[in-house]
Amino acid sequence: MVNAIEWVEGKVIMLDQTRLPLEVKFIECADYRKVAEGIRKLWIRGAPAIGIAAAMGVALAAQDIRADHYDSFMNKIEPVFFELLSTRPTAVNIQWAIERIKRLLAEHRGEPVSTLKDLLIREARKILEEDIEINKAIGRWGAEFIEDGDTILTHCNAGSLATGGYGTATAPMRIAKEQGKLFQVIADETRPVLQGARLTAWELMQEGIPVTLITDNTAGALMQSGDIDLAIVGTDRTARNGDVANKIGTYTVAVLCKENKIPFYVAAPLSSIDFSLPSGEYIPIEERSPEEVTLVNGRCQIAPDGVNVRNIAFDVTPHKYVTALITEKGAFRPKDLKKLMKTNAETERFRFRP
Amino acid sequence: MVNAIEWVEGKVIMLDQTRLPLEVKFIECADYRKVAEGIRKLWIRGAPAIGIAAAMGVALAAQDIRADHYDSFMNKIEPVFFELLSTRPTAVNIQWAIERIKRLLAEHRGEPVSTLKDLLIREARKILEEDIEINKAIGRWGAEFIEDGDTILTHCNAGSLATGGYGTATAPMRIAKEQGKLFQVIADETRPVLQGARLTAWELMQEGIPVTLITDNTAGALMQSGDIDLAIVGTDRTARNGDVANKIGTYTVAVLCKENKIPFYVAAPLSSIDFSLPSGEYIPIEERSPEEVTLVNGRCQIAPDGVNVRNIAFDVTPHKYVTALITEKGAFRPKDLKKLMKTNAETERFRFRP
Repeated sequence: MVNAIEWVEGKVIMLDQTRLPLEVKFIECADYRKVAEGIRKLWIRGAPAIGIAAAMGVALAAQDIRADHYDSFMNKIEPVFFELLSTRPTAVNIQWAIERIKRLLAEHRGEPVSTLKDLLIREARKILEEDIEINKAIGRWGAEFIEDGDTILTHCNAGSLATGGYGTATAPMRIAKEQGKLFQVIADETRPVLQGARLTAWELMQEGIPVTLITDNTAGALMQSGDIDLAIVGTDRTARNGDVANKIGTYTVAVLCKENKIPFYVAAPLSSIDFSLPSGEYIPIEERSPEEVTLVNGRCQIAPDGVNVRNIAFDVTPHKYVTALITEKGAFRPKDLKKLMKTNAETERFRFRP
Repeated sequence: MVNAIEWVEGKVIMLDQTRLPLEVKFIECADYRKVAEGIRKLWIRGAPAIGIAAAMGVALAAQDIRADHYDSFMNKIEPVFFELLSTRPTAVNIQWAIERIKRLLAEHRGEPVSTLKDLLIREARKILEEDIEINKAIGRWGAEFIEDGDTILTHCNAGSLATGGYGTATAPMRIAKEQGKLFQVIADETRPVLQGARLTAWELMQEGIPVTLITDNTAGALMQSGDIDLAIVGTDRTARNGDVANKIGTYTVAVLCKENKIPFYVAAPLSSIDFSLPSGEYIPIEERSPEEVTLVNGRCQIAPDGVNVRNIAFDVTPHKYVTALITEKGAFRPKDLKKLMKTNAETERFRFRP
């Protein structure tokens, strides 16, 4: 399984996901601005992955900073934070990564600049490694909800390519497969950028997990015919009441699930839960260029010249549609999420089990 | 506004809708088998349009039949009925047209073959002209449900291109525009064949009706934000209890409408209501080739080689989601549809008005 992003010999190697599945091409970033470009242009996408990219972008930028002491270094790194934060607004992960880096740098106030530079590389790699461990934990908790014979619907790509590795929504699928469970996945293609068709279908085929591709329009009909047993999706940002922001169309899947009495699970690393937000209306929703809609894969025109387009990239699923959020500490009902804010939360008492 | 289909000097001229919106190309059919090919390959599509195509295909075939008398003519036309009926199973219109033609031929039993040949041409043209008049009536009844400031969601293409002209779901929009009402339309692109993006957006732009294109995933978010006031769609076949078969994704739109308390109207010529079927589960649902999904516009690959695909072309919206069906005799609630089976139905008493 190829990696979305890696730190190799002082450079950031990023898979260009816009070219999948027909071409596997890597982009070498020696400059943080190229990393920022990659985030904006979706060479790298997926909430955890762009958080890791932001951390690596900071580490890259730090290497080139000429500064004699801490304060001068901090002055020069500030605009890097700003540029990475301004790439994309919806996922909380860039914000989360930058804040983690700021706290780390504050803890090392006054230390030599060379130390700070090394620290930032180590922290970026640590964020990536922790991400994989978190995803595996999500996989273990989430696999409990997958039974033999199940058909799982997923939306967008919350797989290995969306993360440091292993995936969030796909993690329970991997673990269930290791456990010998027999199940299949339905991946909806997820227009406009087709992460389901180009990325999820590709990943799952490589993993040997049976997958069937459908258009976004088809999920409802499959639920009506009893062909879907559960849905598992990822999240770009979740409010503390369990309102979930995720790829556009997620709200639609959730409504269909409720109407058809199908459980709707959200694989949500704790880093994706923005406890500072009381509800989903505060989550910024990115809108992107019309060409993503009118020009499939950047080259196939499917609409009249000059047509008006509304390209909303994310939507918010109100918590009432969410059966449970599967975090690295266990699965929780939306109403119990805020209990995780307490440092000594007795999670065993309110975990959601099948 | 170009015509989907026309009878011109003994030939059927069919617009090749697979090439829209970038290319306006007509195909000349001198043989009914080419008409059948056009139906199967979606050069012509839309329930009323393919019914007209079937009638014209029969008329075409009839011209080439060498027969001395009625019975021999009927023997030779029978395989033509069969081939046209077997092109596509879901829309009722081909069946409806063939049955109408059979009844006409039965009424003219024993007449000269040259008379029968002329009759069939005249009947095909009559079906087309009546279709336009029916659509205008649907427009007049449906326009009552459009108010100033409304935003109307539509799905697939139930416009001029889907019919003999004027459209079904778009008919109320045309009339409302003539009445000077100020409204706009949201057209979802309607994967996999993109009738919304390629056909509806194109038609409405030509008509000067403000239209915005969205992906199928986006309708839910727009309903949540209060940006959609009503939905109007067409139908390929409706059962007598008001269960509506239409382009895949229609059921999803209907569920979203119900969840967001938005009225969901179906423009349904009486010819599209199959009173022989008690409910939607009896409507045959066509499935089509995977390439429609994996190869956008027949040339842009968006999925891995060899991926499994499920390409269901239609779905059934249970009547409970349907606010009203707008027919040429007025709008009716699903529960009142079957009253139309009575020849002296007092439609004034159970019409649905805004």
